[in-house]
Amino acid sequence: MTENADPSSEHIMQVGLGFWASKTLLSAVEIEVFTELAKRAEDLATLQSRLGIHPRAGRDFFDTLVALGFLRRVDGKYANTPATDLYLDKHKPTYIGGMLEMANQRLYAHWSHLTEALRTGKQQNESKDATGTPFEALYADPARLKTFLAAMTGISRGGNQAIAEKAPWGQYRTFADVGTAQGDLAVQIALANGHLRGFGYDLPEVGPIFEEYVEQHALSGRLTFHPGNFFEDPLPRVDVITMGHILHDWNLEEKKMLLRKTYDALNPGGAVVIYETIIDDGRSQNAFGLLMSLNMLVETPGGFDYTGQDCMAWMKEVGFRATSVHHLVGSESMVVGIK
Amino acid sequence: MTENADPSSEHIMQVGLGFWASKTLLSAVEIEVFTELAKRAEDLATLQSRLGIHPRAGRDFFDTLVALGFLRRVDGKYANTPATDLYLDKHKPTYIGGMLEMANQRLYAHWSHLTEALRTGKQQNESKDATGTPFEALYADPARLKTFLAAMTGISRGGNQAIAEKAPWGQYRTFADVGTAQGDLAVQIALANGHLRGFGYDLPEVGPIFEEYVEQHALSGRLTFHPGNFFEDPLPRVDVITMGHILHDWNLEEKKMLLRKTYDALNPGGAVVIYETIIDDGRSQNAFGLLMSLNMLVETPGGFDYTGQDCMAWMKEVGFRATSVHHLVGSESMVVGIK
Repeated sequence: MTENADPSSEHIMQVGLGFWASKTLLSAVEIEVFTELAKRAEDLATLQSRLGIHPRAGRDFFDTLVALGFLRRVDGKYANTPATDLYLDKHKPTYIGGMLEMANQRLYAHWSHLTEALRTGKQQNESKDATGTPFEALYADPARLKTFLAAMTGISRGGNQAIAEKAPWGQYRTFADVGTAQGDLAVQIALANGHLRGFGYDLPEVGPIFEEYVEQHALSGRLTFHPGNFFEDPLPRVDVITMGHILHDWNLEEKKMLLRKTYDALNPGGAVVIYETIIDDGRSQNAFGLLMSLNMLVETPGGFDYTGQDCMAWMKEVGFRATSVHHLVGSESMVVGIK
Repeated sequence: MTENADPSSEHIMQVGLGFWASKTLLSAVEIEVFTELAKRAEDLATLQSRLGIHPRAGRDFFDTLVALGFLRRVDGKYANTPATDLYLDKHKPTYIGGMLEMANQRLYAHWSHLTEALRTGKQQNESKDATGTPFEALYADPARLKTFLAAMTGISRGGNQAIAEKAPWGQYRTFADVGTAQGDLAVQIALANGHLRGFGYDLPEVGPIFEEYVEQHALSGRLTFHPGNFFEDPLPRVDVITMGHILHDWNLEEKKMLLRKTYDALNPGGAVVIYETIIDDGRSQNAFGLLMSLNMLVETPGGFDYTGQDCMAWMKEVGFRATSVHHLVGSESMVVGIK
C-alpha cells in the first residue's frame, strides 16, 4: 500500500486538530505529571492513583504523552524524558511551565473567541468588558499575578540567557530591566556579568516577588527593585535599558512613547535592548511571532508584534543613532539602539 | 550566535501553545478565507472588507496563515496554496473542512474540560448532563447533525479511497456500510468497483442526507439507504460489512456486540472491514490515534480507540476465522476479519 499518498490534507487536519496535543500537554502540566515522575518512574496503577486520574482515562493519557515524546515507557513504568524532567518539574529552577499554566488557565479559553477578536479588533480576556489597562485585572488578583509573572519567566528564559551572554555588557556599568516581572532577565544578566549593578522596574505589586527571586540567586547586593508605572513615572538613569516582551503589549503611540522615555533616561552612549518574538521583515517566516501578535489581539486593547525594521525605524525616530537586529534563540530576536 | 541551543524547551513551548496555530486555522475555515480566495487572489484591503475582518487584525491573521503554509502572498496579494485550494474551498467536492468546522464549533470548547474528563472519566460535551446515547443530542438538531456528518466525510476521505482500492472487492457482490453518515465510504467503494451493490446503514434521520450525497455521485442505482439502529435492529445480510470510525465510539461490551451482530449478518466467506485511527500495538507511535481516544473520552460515555491486536482478538472471540491489519493512509488502518 502507498504510504500517505496525500500529505497535505493530513497536514491540514493535524494543525486543525493540533489543540488536542496542545491541551493534553497543558493538562499534564496542570496535573503535575512531570513533577511527580521527577521523583521516580512509576507504573500505570501507581501513577493514576497518585495523580487522581480516572482508570478510564489514565492509560490513554500517559501513552499519548509517550507518543508525543514527553514521557518514556520502559518495562511498564512511565518516566520523564531528559527535557521534561529539566523543564517541567516544578521543583527545579529550570522549570518553564509557568507560561503553560497561564495558557491552560487563561489563554486557551480566551482564544476560543478568536473569530470575534478578528471581526471586532477587541480583546477577549478578563478585561473584555472593563475599562483601564489590560494589566489592571491581572495585577489586582495576587494568584493571577504570580501565574502571569512565572509565565513570563518561562517564556523568556532562553532569550534572557542569550542576552546575558551576547550583548556588549563589557562597556557598561549599570542597567535597568523595565517591566521586569520576576526579574529573570536581570538575574541572568547579573549572573553572567559580575561587574554590573541593575534595577528591576515594574509596578509596586511586583516588588516582593522580584525580591524573593533575586534573593534565591544571592544577587540582592547588586539588583534592586525600582517601583514605577512607565506611563506616569520616569525611568531610572542608567547605561542600558532592557525591555523583554513589553513593547508588543502596547499600541503604536505607546510603543514610541516608551522608546522616547528610554532614550531620555539613558546616559550618553548608552543602549536600549528590546527583545521578543520579533517578526521577520518579510512577515512570512516567524509563525510564532505572528501568532504572538494575534495573542496580543486577544489579550490587549491595542498591542501587536512587529518586525526588526519596524522597531529600528521607531528607534531612529526618537533619536537613537545606530540600530541593529540580532537573533537570540528560536523565534526570539533583540533590537539594539545606541544613544 | 548559536542557533537554538535548546531545541527541547522550544518544542515543549510550541506544542503547549500549539492551540494558537490550530485555532487560527479553525477560524480561517469558519470565516471561509479559502473559499473566498478560491475565486481569485486578493490584496489585504479587499480581503479584509469582503470577509468582515477588523483592520487591527487582518494583516497579522493573513500573514500568520502565510507563515503556517496555508496561504501564499505574492506581489501584495494573498492566494490559496494548491492544498488549501483543493481541500478547504467549500464549493469543491474535495472539501475536508467539515471536521474542522465541528472542531471549531464543538470540540475546541469541550477539550477545555480535558482535566475534568481525566479526573472523572466522564464525557464533557453537550450530553454531559443528559442521559441517553451520546448521539441523541447531536442527531436531534438538524444543523448539528449535518455538521457532524460532513465532519465524518472530511476526516474519512483518504481512508475511504484507500479501502475502495485496496480491499479484495473482486470476490464479493454486496456490502453494507454501517454507520454510513453522508455515505462517502459507500460512494468511494461503488465508484471504484462497478460490480458492487451496497447499503448505507444509519439512523433514519440520516436518510435524506445520504440520498442527496449518493445522487450527487449518480450512484442511486447501486446504493440504497437502509434505516436502522444497530443496537436494536439486525444488520442487512451481505458479503461485506464496513464500519469506519464507529467502533471507537462505544465501550468494550458494545464493541463486541457490534462485531457479533456483524458476524451473524455476513454471508459465509464474507468479510468485516473495521477502520479508524488504529493505535500501534506498542501504544507509543500513533499519537493521533491515542489523541482520538482522548477525544472519545471527552465526547462519549464509554468509547475508546484500540490497537490492531485488540481488534483481532475481539474478532476471533465472536467467531471470525482469519484476521489481519493493513495500513491505509496517515494514522488510519483497517482490520479485516473473514467469516
